[in-house]
Amino acid sequence: MTSPARLLAPSALVLALSALTSEPAAQVIGLAETSAASQECIACHRLQSPSIYEQWGDSKHFRAHIGCYECHAAQAEDRDAIRHYDQLISVIVSPKDCARCHAGEVEQFLASHHSKAARILGSLDNTLAEVVEGNQGLVTEGFPEGVSAAAVSGCWQCHGTEVKVLSTGRLDPATWPNTGIGRINPDGSEGSCSACHARHEFSAAQARRPENCGRCHMGPDHPQREIYEESKHGVAFHANEQQMQLDSPKWVVGEDYTAAPTCATCHMSATRAQPVTHDVGLRISWNNRPVISIRPEEADAKLGLPGASISWEVRRDNMKDVCSACHEDVWIENFYIQYDGIIALYNEKFARPGKALYELAKPLLQPTEFANKLDFIWFELWHHEGRRARHGASMMGPDYTHWHGTYELAKNFYSEYIPELRELAEDNLRSTDPTRAAAAAALAEGIEEVLASGDHKWFLGLMDPEEAARRAAAAAEFAERYAK
Amino acid sequence: MTSPARLLAPSALVLALSALTSEPAAQVIGLAETSAASQECIACHRLQSPSIYEQWGDSKHFRAHIGCYECHAAQAEDRDAIRHYDQLISVIVSPKDCARCHAGEVEQFLASHHSKAARILGSLDNTLAEVVEGNQGLVTEGFPEGVSAAAVSGCWQCHGTEVKVLSTGRLDPATWPNTGIGRINPDGSEGSCSACHARHEFSAAQARRPENCGRCHMGPDHPQREIYEESKHGVAFHANEQQMQLDSPKWVVGEDYTAAPTCATCHMSATRAQPVTHDVGLRISWNNRPVISIRPEEADAKLGLPGASISWEVRRDNMKDVCSACHEDVWIENFYIQYDGIIALYNEKFARPGKALYELAKPLLQPTEFANKLDFIWFELWHHEGRRARHGASMMGPDYTHWHGTYELAKNFYSEYIPELRELAEDNLRSTDPTRAAAAAALAEGIEEVLASGDHKWFLGLMDPEEAARRAAAAAEFAERYAK
Amino acid sequence: MTSPARLLAPSALVLALSALTSEPAAQVIGLAETSAASQECIACHRLQSPSIYEQWGDSKHFRAHIGCYECHAAQAEDRDAIRHYDQLISVIVSPKDCARCHAGEVEQFLASHHSKAARILGSLDNTLAEVVEGNQGLVTEGFPEGVSAAAVSGCWQCHGTEVKVLSTGRLDPATWPNTGIGRINPDGSEGSCSACHARHEFSAAQARRPENCGRCHMGPDHPQREIYEESKHGVAFHANEQQMQLDSPKWVVGEDYTAAPTCATCHMSATRAQPVTHDVGLRISWNNRPVISIRPEEADAKLGLPGASISWEVRRDNMKDVCSACHEDVWIENFYIQYDGIIALYNEKFARPGKALYELAKPLLQPTEFANKLDFIWFELWHHEGRRARHGASMMGPDYTHWHGTYELAKNFYSEYIPELRELAEDNLRSTDPTRAAAAAALAEGIEEVLASGDHKWFLGLMDPEEAARRAAAAAEFAERYAK
Repeated sequence: MTSPARLLAPSALVLALSALTSEPAAQVIGLAETSAASQECIACHRLQSPSIYEQWGDSKHFRAHIGCYECHAAQAEDRDAIRHYDQLISVIVSPKDCARCHAGEVEQFLASHHSKAARILGSLDNTLAEVVEGNQGLVTEGFPEGVSAAAVSGCWQCHGTEVKVLSTGRLDPATWPNTGIGRINPDGSEGSCSACHARHEFSAAQARRPENCGRCHMGPDHPQREIYEESKHGVAFHANEQQMQLDSPKWVVGEDYTAAPTCATCHMSATRAQPVTHDVGLRISWNNRPVISIRPEEADAKLGLPGASISWEVRRDNMKDVCSACHEDVWIENFYIQYDGIIALYNEKFARPGKALYELAKPLLQPTEFANKLDFIWFELWHHEGRRARHGASMMGPDYTHWHGTYELAKNFYSEYIPELRELAEDNLRSTDPTRAAAAAALAEGIEEVLASGDHKWFLGLMDPEEAARRAAAAAEFAERYAK
Repeated sequence: MTSPARLLAPSALVLALSALTSEPAAQVIGLAETSAASQECIACHRLQSPSIYEQWGDSKHFRAHIGCYECHAAQAEDRDAIRHYDQLISVIVSPKDCARCHAGEVEQFLASHHSKAARILGSLDNTLAEVVEGNQGLVTEGFPEGVSAAAVSGCWQCHGTEVKVLSTGRLDPATWPNTGIGRINPDGSEGSCSACHARHEFSAAQARRPENCGRCHMGPDHPQREIYEESKHGVAFHANEQQMQLDSPKWVVGEDYTAAPTCATCHMSATRAQPVTHDVGLRISWNNRPVISIRPEEADAKLGLPGASISWEVRRDNMKDVCSACHEDVWIENFYIQYDGIIALYNEKFARPGKALYELAKPLLQPTEFANKLDFIWFELWHHEGRRARHGASMMGPDYTHWHGTYELAKNFYSEYIPELRELAEDNLRSTDPTRAAAAAALAEGIEEVLASGDHKWFLGLMDPEEAARRAAAAAEFAERYAK
Repeated sequence: MTSPARLLAPSALVLALSALTSEPAAQVIGLAETSAASQECIACHRLQSPSIYEQWGDSKHFRAHIGCYECHAAQAEDRDAIRHYDQLISVIVSPKDCARCHAGEVEQFLASHHSKAARILGSLDNTLAEVVEGNQGLVTEGFPEGVSAAAVSGCWQCHGTEVKVLSTGRLDPATWPNTGIGRINPDGSEGSCSACHARHEFSAAQARRPENCGRCHMGPDHPQREIYEESKHGVAFHANEQQMQLDSPKWVVGEDYTAAPTCATCHMSATRAQPVTHDVGLRISWNNRPVISIRPEEADAKLGLPGASISWEVRRDNMKDVCSACHEDVWIENFYIQYDGIIALYNEKFARPGKALYELAKPLLQPTEFANKLDFIWFELWHHEGRRARHGASMMGPDYTHWHGTYELAKNFYSEYIPELRELAEDNLRSTDPTRAAAAAALAEGIEEVLASGDHKWFLGLMDPEEAARRAAAAAEFAERYAK
């Protein structure tokens, strides 16, 4: 939807310049009184949907006289404009709408991976939810040939989808309700501010809480919420919620609160040196999404984001600045050595050889992805277990790093992946199809090469004798020293 | 236990009629002062079990002078009456006891599935906890031939058990402590009010919190607590606990609180149009417990419950009324289209064909249930993964719908269930027993029929060319439009 | 680090004897004013690390004028002494340092298993994190031949490690940051008080909360946090946090709070009869860590701890005393019958036969531990699933006892472990190596012996006819009685 020009005419605005910041005045905007249009909405909705009315009544929007109509107003040319009594409105308030007052936040958001989350939709290999798990059973006006309910109620609710507008101006039920963070809106904008800023209070305090991010950042493939809850940061948060000043407008760590960080503290919120940002990638020095961890500038470049020119070193310095509110420099340096150690271990021991073997296996597999058990095993190795180890280490959750992470990774690499690969090679070595037989030989050779390499030869009972001796000596020395 | 008649003689009662409701006066009852009998109890117990005394002191019972004896008094003919100093009491306070003052609540409860939860005990196929996991190692007076500790400390603690009264009037240790919600009490009544209303404060606020329901509604087979915590509802609850007015006697959503719903809000508590109910099924339009989801009236009929005559449409309207405190009609309608979509997907793609194949496999399996690996795979498909998908969608927890739900469902269907079925068929096709060979042939045919059907033929690399072309075109179009 | 003698000269001390206890005066110690040395620290650190300063400002240490230098001061001979401006300090404050004021707490702690948690490091079979999951890729000054990042960021963060001091006096980054509870400090002491008492507020309230213990006691192998959250205790805690008086210095259950217990309540904190203790094993009557549950005095003896002379009966009585604040004697007795029932079931049905079969299998396995799939299956049976069942029952979390516990245990015993063992035996029965063939025969015989035994013969379809008849009769009787 688009704002009617009259609505934001300067004469109608009260600009309250913050004494504390030099941010553009556009960030703090209000009206002199609640508009007549909004009052019309309120007349019914205070009775018909009282909770929305009350939530709004608790919001900063209320205090600034930003009412229903200021956000929901539409223009005739808007694809999703619907006539509702005397008014032309649209249901979805998009980032483009929010940007009329919150331009800086939206700009930051649009530079982030969050805004591109719906790009998974068009990926050629997005067969999982649509084909493997799903079918075309959910038929709507917008999807006359059907769409997968697993995508609709699963993926899309976090990632967002392309909202389809029906001939009536209504929104297709397969695509809305949807507050996925990368939602593609009828006005072409990307994103859903209400993914985090739950309507209709839009409370900063709520968005700063760990549960908020945990709506999507949880579960087997990226259990950031669970890791946070396990970490000392999570423990400190729950012990000190009353001291967190979550309602503070400024909310600078080390100034307004000192007891614990939440997700927002580290990834978004203000420090004494940095302003708040809605680009969640600016303090992250590894992108742990792919099979092999890469640097965030590389990931940004792939998506055409401006972060392509911001090096991981700059981002790491940004994060270290956050850490420094509570931790000394050497602590922080040492932490990063530990974290980088897990990334290197994962990349070198499991991800690279695992990926190479999967490539060698492909000519022997059913060509349809996920039609082979091996597809699932490999997928979970990097997408689930490998991520858990990396995310666990990034946020100091030892149980997720180890038991949910490297332990599962090693267990499934050695007791599922390697045996399945070996069987695949053996089954095809004597194939009458010479291409298959050659592929099987190459796979068998690849497997043995990996297993004979330094990181894996223990599995063949071939640990380097020096290492074995060193391990035994260390254990003996330890036992002697600490024997009661 | 039964109340001594004198205890509730009208002359001793103070009836405080609520000005706000037209509910029967019996719902609000108290005594003029703490009875002499209860004062005797208190004299010791305030020292010996101080926490119970203090919890009671914080309760509405205290303020109404309903003391220990008013609830625990027994009559000589009660099977579990025990003499305790000068008094005849029983340990268990059953729904029959509570109904003396809370008749309406107990009546509603008795109409619900909750009250029948212990029926699993007598099920002929209840071999899992008793035989597969358990043994007869826990020998008590009530179980001279032994009982399974896995049932005692597992199933029975949520479902309830039949409480056995020993010759001394004491309760058999295998059957008590037990606050399973369907407990079968010595007085023959079904249920345990303290499953949710924890003694001895019996606080409504506690019962309304999500953790309360989560004591049983969690874990791999029905992770409602985890789903709620992931959902926007859970996020809003934790951000707004202080605004929830959980202590409000009336607690009408949209009137007394507007920030978030808890489990109770949606399934039990009052709205502007509906009174509170202790029949948790009255707002549920699918029963997702069985292999194939059914309508709740069908499930009620099986248990002989009065809900057999209440259609799912009525129940859905009840729930929509709850939703309407915060959501608009179209939002609600669209949500239900999404939810129904997952039920249909699960039922049609996985449950019906999965069940049919299991039936075809049975003649080839060990007849003892759970003696075959296939039994576990199939059991988890519907009982664990299939429920998670359905419950996840019902409460808008996308991670449970997808990663814990449809993803696991598909993974195990294609990479565990189908291969195990195929192996079973192959192993028996050439059996010298013609019955087995025929069964194997039928199974093999059934498998191929399922895999060749529309929902599954992708697995054989036989996706409909039109669908494949459509998918490729959509992806190309998406890529072009959203290429940076 | 060691305290400079002058610091604690009696003339500088204010001894505030508690009117409420007869504990040694050394427990309550303070200074007349903040030392000049600490004031020097503060001058910079209030600006450079404001959160630490503020946390300290909220601590009891602040009120007693125990500042930075009082804890961090070092002497020249300390291995980890570093010069920091005018002062000689060390980064790590060890239990030896804390004991200068908190001698009793440290003494209790040193008697506990907690203090020995780093002993896993030197165990000869500690191959999991170092070899199986890890490699020697993390090279530091302290580990010139490399160390496993999986151990560093995984195991060591909970268990602790041996902190290595570099030539500069700095701490090796592989060994610090580390607050593992059994950390071996540069001064030779064992333990890390800040594992639970998070710096720099050291708040008792925080340490008493369930999340605190949950930083380590969670996850697949010891989900105590999850079990607590599921239990009625956890439900009551969350409903009554405001009544928990977590800040109370005395914090006696039944006196200062009566609404719910936390982990600390049951395992450490004061009752009306027992003082607080930092030896977490004094109220525990089973040690459920090993393959087969043992009594805690046996476990203490193995570690040379003084608890070797404290019988499980004494410890159980200690726990019963805690329970009695809220529960009656019969309730408590019966609970323990239920709990012991699960231990017996696990030990007899799964642990003993499972272990025996594993021993029989060993001659046929690859000698390197975890190079066989069977190693993982057996490891998880006792270390993960078996523990979950036992821990679940110990804390009354029925879902963990059953679905995460005995169900998984039985499923994997019958559908993974037995088939893998059978295959191992079959594959080797006709081995040309007579030793292998004999071992295979012995294994095959062992398997059949286990399966033919009373607890397992149902699996062979050989349930005792009497038992089968009894089960059928009970089910029929139940069905008749409770048929609608």
